[in-house]
Amino acid sequence: MPNSVPTTTSSATPVDDPGAPRFLASDNTSGICPEAMEYLVQANQVDDLAYGNDRWTAKASDRFRELFETDCEVFFVFNGTAANSLALASTCQSYHSVICHQLAHIETDECGGPEFFSNGSKLLTVAGDNGRVTPERIATTVTRRGDIHYPRPRAVSLTQATEVGTVYALDELHAIHDVADQHGLRIHMDGARFANACAGLDASPADLTWRAGVDVLCFSGTKNGLGFGEAVIFFDRELAEDFGYRCKQAGQLASKMRFLSAPWLGLLESGAWLSNAQHANAMARRLAAGVEALDGVRLMFPVQANSVFLELAPATQQALRDSHWTFYTFIGEGGARFVCSWNTTPALIDSLIEDLRQALRS
Amino acid sequence: MPNSVPTTTSSATPVDDPGAPRFLASDNTSGICPEAMEYLVQANQVDDLAYGNDRWTAKASDRFRELFETDCEVFFVFNGTAANSLALASTCQSYHSVICHQLAHIETDECGGPEFFSNGSKLLTVAGDNGRVTPERIATTVTRRGDIHYPRPRAVSLTQATEVGTVYALDELHAIHDVADQHGLRIHMDGARFANACAGLDASPADLTWRAGVDVLCFSGTKNGLGFGEAVIFFDRELAEDFGYRCKQAGQLASKMRFLSAPWLGLLESGAWLSNAQHANAMARRLAAGVEALDGVRLMFPVQANSVFLELAPATQQALRDSHWTFYTFIGEGGARFVCSWNTTPALIDSLIEDLRQALRS
Amino acid sequence: MPNSVPTTTSSATPVDDPGAPRFLASDNTSGICPEAMEYLVQANQVDDLAYGNDRWTAKASDRFRELFETDCEVFFVFNGTAANSLALASTCQSYHSVICHQLAHIETDECGGPEFFSNGSKLLTVAGDNGRVTPERIATTVTRRGDIHYPRPRAVSLTQATEVGTVYALDELHAIHDVADQHGLRIHMDGARFANACAGLDASPADLTWRAGVDVLCFSGTKNGLGFGEAVIFFDRELAEDFGYRCKQAGQLASKMRFLSAPWLGLLESGAWLSNAQHANAMARRLAAGVEALDGVRLMFPVQANSVFLELAPATQQALRDSHWTFYTFIGEGGARFVCSWNTTPALIDSLIEDLRQALRS
Amino acid sequence: MPNSVPTTTSSATPVDDPGAPRFLASDNTSGICPEAMEYLVQANQVDDLAYGNDRWTAKASDRFRELFETDCEVFFVFNGTAANSLALASTCQSYHSVICHQLAHIETDECGGPEFFSNGSKLLTVAGDNGRVTPERIATTVTRRGDIHYPRPRAVSLTQATEVGTVYALDELHAIHDVADQHGLRIHMDGARFANACAGLDASPADLTWRAGVDVLCFSGTKNGLGFGEAVIFFDRELAEDFGYRCKQAGQLASKMRFLSAPWLGLLESGAWLSNAQHANAMARRLAAGVEALDGVRLMFPVQANSVFLELAPATQQALRDSHWTFYTFIGEGGARFVCSWNTTPALIDSLIEDLRQALRS
Repeated sequence: MPNSVPTTTSSATPVDDPGAPRFLASDNTSGICPEAMEYLVQANQVDDLAYGNDRWTAKASDRFRELFETDCEVFFVFNGTAANSLALASTCQSYHSVICHQLAHIETDECGGPEFFSNGSKLLTVAGDNGRVTPERIATTVTRRGDIHYPRPRAVSLTQATEVGTVYALDELHAIHDVADQHGLRIHMDGARFANACAGLDASPADLTWRAGVDVLCFSGTKNGLGFGEAVIFFDRELAEDFGYRCKQAGQLASKMRFLSAPWLGLLESGAWLSNAQHANAMARRLAAGVEALDGVRLMFPVQANSVFLELAPATQQALRDSHWTFYTFIGEGGARFVCSWNTTPALIDSLIEDLRQALRS
Repeated sequence: MPNSVPTTTSSATPVDDPGAPRFLASDNTSGICPEAMEYLVQANQVDDLAYGNDRWTAKASDRFRELFETDCEVFFVFNGTAANSLALASTCQSYHSVICHQLAHIETDECGGPEFFSNGSKLLTVAGDNGRVTPERIATTVTRRGDIHYPRPRAVSLTQATEVGTVYALDELHAIHDVADQHGLRIHMDGARFANACAGLDASPADLTWRAGVDVLCFSGTKNGLGFGEAVIFFDRELAEDFGYRCKQAGQLASKMRFLSAPWLGLLESGAWLSNAQHANAMARRLAAGVEALDGVRLMFPVQANSVFLELAPATQQALRDSHWTFYTFIGEGGARFVCSWNTTPALIDSLIEDLRQALRS
Repeated sequence: MPNSVPTTTSSATPVDDPGAPRFLASDNTSGICPEAMEYLVQANQVDDLAYGNDRWTAKASDRFRELFETDCEVFFVFNGTAANSLALASTCQSYHSVICHQLAHIETDECGGPEFFSNGSKLLTVAGDNGRVTPERIATTVTRRGDIHYPRPRAVSLTQATEVGTVYALDELHAIHDVADQHGLRIHMDGARFANACAGLDASPADLTWRAGVDVLCFSGTKNGLGFGEAVIFFDRELAEDFGYRCKQAGQLASKMRFLSAPWLGLLESGAWLSNAQHANAMARRLAAGVEALDGVRLMFPVQANSVFLELAPATQQALRDSHWTFYTFIGEGGARFVCSWNTTPALIDSLIEDLRQALRS
Repeated sequence: MPNSVPTTTSSATPVDDPGAPRFLASDNTSGICPEAMEYLVQANQVDDLAYGNDRWTAKASDRFRELFETDCEVFFVFNGTAANSLALASTCQSYHSVICHQLAHIETDECGGPEFFSNGSKLLTVAGDNGRVTPERIATTVTRRGDIHYPRPRAVSLTQATEVGTVYALDELHAIHDVADQHGLRIHMDGARFANACAGLDASPADLTWRAGVDVLCFSGTKNGLGFGEAVIFFDRELAEDFGYRCKQAGQLASKMRFLSAPWLGLLESGAWLSNAQHANAMARRLAAGVEALDGVRLMFPVQANSVFLELAPATQQALRDSHWTFYTFIGEGGARFVCSWNTTPALIDSLIEDLRQALRS
C-alpha cells in the first residue's frame, strides 16, 4: 500500500499530562490505528461504487478467507451489538433460545439487542468459572426442558476471549462442540476480542473457529484498531442465506461501505490485526506482573488476553480515580477492570503500577 | 479548529482518465469531504471516552441546536435506514401506519426496515406529482378506514428533497402540517438530502422543520460529505424518550462515537454542510442547463436540489454506459438519474453534457 | 357419536320478526352448527388433558389426514388472522415478502398481522380480475427487483374462495404452481372459505391443495360452523418444524384444546364441513338467480362460492338498511356484499329478493 | 337468564372407574362450568354481529365494571399467554424490562411470549419466598443498572395467586405499589387464578387491583370455568389506547366474539366466578388438611388458593402415578403439584388422600 498518504497516528493516553484522563476503561477508548487510517485515507482518494461494490470490500473478504483458510461468507456491519444479534438471529427463530454465560455481553450489555433482532429469542444463561461456559452446563440446560412451553435451545454463544479476560483453550472448544453437536446446537462466537484470543493462545483463526465447530464468528474490528466495524464470518454458509437482506433491513448496510472494509483490509494486509492484539495482551501481562507482588491487590482471573481484573479496596479505587484513571467496576463479577489496547504504552502501564503502589502505601 | 493536520482531500471522479468510471449514480459514491476528514483525524489524536461521553459529541449536538435555533434532542446513528426506521418507530406502534409517497425511500429501498424496527407498522403509500405528498392525499388516506381491522395512521413521512430531486416549499409544508394536526399525525422528515433542500429553497433549517411542524428529522451526513453518519433530531422531545435505549438495542450506538460526531462537527463548524449542498445543487443545475437545448433529452422533473432525471432513449443510455458513466434508471419513476455531490466537478458535468451531445448525434 | 346430548340448534336470522336485524353481512354472524355443538358438549362430559393431549385432538388431526389423503401436519389455532400470519411466518423471514392480491384479507383486514408475526415481511400486492392473482402478475412481481434493497419474495398467498366470492379453478392453481416453483416461492392458501371452494368446484381438498402445489393451508372452521377455530395444515412438513413452539409463543395454544378440536371433529365426522358449505353456496346462488332479472341490480362477480356482490344505487342500499339488512359495502371492490352461511335460510334469501324488488320499484 | 336451555354439566373426574385418569394436574383439565355453558348455548340461539358488536360483549364489559367498581377498559382475548403478553406490551417498549418472580408463568411457561409480543422486552427475574416478589427485590433490581446498555425497567408483574398457590396480602400489594410508584413502574397482575386469590383473601376485586395500584389485570376465565377466554382489564385507561388494534393485529380478536363474552357473562351474572373459586380453594384446603398428619408428606407452601404442593418421595410419586393420578413435578420449585378446580369433588380429594396413605404405608 502507498505510504504517500500523510501519517495520522493516534497517540495513547499521554502520561506526562497529570490532569489528563488515563484510559484503561476499555479497548474502545483508543482510536484508529495507523494501518487502518492509512487505508481509510487511501479509500477516500477517488469516488467508488456504494454498498460494497467498490475496490475494497471484495478484497477484504478474500483476505478473511485466506486468514481463516476456508471459503467462508463475510459481511461487514457497524458494531458489535448488531453483529452478535444478527448472527444469532440467523441461528434462531423467535421461539428458540441461546445458551450463554451469565456474564456474556449479549446478556449484560446489549440492551436486549439479541431479543430485538430475533423478535424474542430467549437467552438461557449459565454460570461457569472464569467466564467460561462448560459442556456440562450446556448439556444440563439443553435437556432441562423439552416441552413447547419453553423456548427450544438452538445455539450456544461463546465469548472468545471471555468477558473476564480468559480464553477457551482448543480442547475446551472441542468438548463444547461435541455436546453442541449432540443436541443440534449451532455455535456462535462473540469475538469482541477474538484477535486477543488468537494472540493469547498462539492459535490460528481457523483452529479457533470452524475447526472447532464454530458456525459463525463476530470478529470485532472496533476493539482491534478500527473506528467502527465488525466482520460477521459464516463458516456454515447455509446460515448466511439472504444475510445481506437481513443486514440491509436492520440498518447495517453501509452505503459508503469502503470506509468499513478498507480499514479492515489495512488490518489484515499489514498483520496489525494480530500485532495490535499481541501488543495489548503484552501490556495486560505487564500490568499483571507489576501488581503481583503488591499487597492489597488480587488478580481475580488469569490474564490470558488484554484485560486485567483487580480486587481493590474502595479507598485504593478512589485513589486511582483521583489520579484520573478510568476503569469500570461493574463488568464481569466486579473488581476493577483495566483493558489494554493497541496503543496502550508501557509507560502508561508502569505509571498505573506506580500509582497503585502509592495508593496502597497510604 | 487546527489546520495543522494533513490535508486529506477526496478528489471527484477524474475526467482525464478515459477508462475510469464516472460517478453520478448517487451522492454516496463520493468520499469524505476535507472538513469532515480533518475533524476525524483530529478526534483520533488522543484517546477518549466511549458511547458519546467524549469531547466531540456534546459539542456537535449543541451545534445542531444552534443551527436549528431550538433545544432539540440529537442522536447520531450509522445510516439512513436505521435513522428513518428508528425515528418512525418512535411515532408508531406495530398496529399503526405511516403515510408516505409511493416513491419514498422507506417504501422502495430500505428492505422493510421501517416494518422491522416497528415490528410491523404498515406504510400507506400515496401517489403525488413530482415526488411530493399532498395534503389532499393525506386526508383521503387517513379517513379511508377507521376500523380496527386496518393499521391506524399515526405519522406522515416527507422526503426533503424528494426522491425525484424536487423540494417541498414552505407553504406546502405548512399545508401538510395543518392536515396532519387535524388528524393527529406526527410528521417525520427523511432528510437524506435535507441540506440540498435548505440550499435549494434558501431556507433555514428551522423554517423547514419545526416551524413547519416537523416532529423528527433524519439529517443525512453520509450524502453531505461524511463517511457514515446520520443525525436524528427530535423537535418534539417527548418522542425522544428513552431513544438512547432504542438506538443501543437496535445496534446503532457507536462505541467510538467520536468518529461519528466529530466529522459532523466539522461539517457544522465550517459551514460545509451548506456549501457542500450548494455546490452539488449548482452542479445539478449546470447539467440541467447544459442538456436543455439538446434534442432527444427531456428533463423529467424540476431540478430543485442535486438530482437530475433525464428521459433518454435506450441507445443513448447505452452510449453513456459505454463511456463509463454510472447512473441508475430504476429509481423514482424511471429515466436516468444523475446525482451531484460535494465533490462533483464542473469538468465532469461538462464532459457528461458533451458525451450526451455525441451520443444523440450518432 | 352419541346423540343423547341435548340438541342445541342455532337458528338463522328469523324472518318473521320485522324489527330484527337480518344478517347477511358475513359468515361470521352465524353461530355454532349442531354437529360442532354436539361434539363440544360431548367433550365437556369428563375432564381431559390439556394442550392437545386429550382424546379429541389427535383424532381430529387424523381425520384431516384422511380428508386430505396425505400425511399432513395439523395445528389448531384460534382465529384466521393468527392462522394466516403464523403460516406465512413459517415461509418467510422478516426481510422476505409475500405476493398477494390487493384485496386479500391479509392485506386489507388483518391490521398488519402478517407483518407483526413475521417481524416485518412485506406484502407485495397485485391487481387481478375477479379477485384472483394470475401467474403473469406473480412473475412480473417476483422479477421486478433482485437487489437487497427490497424484500425478497418467498411466498404467494392465494385466497380460496377469493374475497369477491370467486374461486381458482384447478388449472389456474397449477399454472400458479408452475410459476411459483420456477421462482422458489412457497404457496400459502388462505382458506377462510376453503370448504365453499371445494363445494363450488366440486373438487377434493387434496386436489385443491397439495396436488396443486399448496404448501400450507389455513382452513377456517369459524366460517364453516364453529364458534372459533382454524386448522393450519402443512403439506410441506419441513415448514412445520417447531410450529408448535411458534403457536405457543404467539398465544395460539389453547390449554383446553379439546374445545377447539372436538367441534372440528364434529364437522369432519358428520360431513358437515362440506354440507354446510354446499348449503351456503346454494343460498348464494339462489340470491344471484333471484336478482338477475331485476333492473337496477348488477352482479359484480361470478357467484362461485357463498358471497354475492351487488352493485346497488345508494337509495336502494338505504332502503335495505331501513329494512334491517346488514351488509358491507367496503369489502372487495365496493358494492354491497351479502354472504350466506350454513344457517342461512331460503326464506331469508327470498325475503331479501323481495325487499330488493320493492326498493327498486320505489 | 333463561333456564330452558338443556343442562350440559361437566362432571369432574369419576372416582369409581379405577382405570380412568384422575385429573389434578391443573385447573385446565376441567371443562366448561354449567353457568358458562348455559350462556354459550343461549348466545347460539340467534345470529349476531361479529367482533364484539353483539348483545353480549358490551354487557359483559359492564358487568366487569360493576364487579371492579370502576370505569375500567375491558378486552376479551383467547388465552393467558396472549393476555399477559399483550398487557405487558402495553406498558413497555422493546428496550424496556419487566420485573417478575423467577417462577412467574411469563418467564417459565409462555415460550417467550412476552418477548415476542413486545419485540424484545426483557424479563428481570427475582427470587422471593413462597413465590412472591418483595418490594426490596424490586428496589434492588430497578436500581442495579441505570445505563442505556441494559433494558430499562418499566413494569412489575405480580401473579395473584402465585405459581406456588400463595397470595399477596393487601399490605404486601400496597408496599409493592409504593416502590413501583417511586421508580415509575407500572403494575401488571397475572390473574390466572385471580378469582382464587379473591376467594382466598376474602377481598374484593377492586381492593386487590386498582385500589392497590394495579394498572392492568389479566383475569383468567379458562381456569375459572370457561372453555377459553381471558379478560384484560385496564384500570389505567391510558395504557388501553388503541389496545383493540393491538389485539386485532396479534390474532386475538374473535370474530364470533359472543362465544367468548357470553360465557364470561354467565360467570359474572351467576356469581360462579367466585363460587367456582371458593369451591376449588376449599378442595385444596381439604387436601392439605387430609395429608397434614401423614408421615412422609410435607406441605411445601401455605395453601392459600387452589394449589397444593407436596414433597413426596419418588416411590410415593410412582405409586400415585400407578393409580392414574396426574400431577406435575416440574412447576414452581419442584414437588408434586395438585390443583383443584370448580368441578373437583370431595370424593376425588378423599380418594387421593387414601391413595397417598396407602402409598406411604408400603
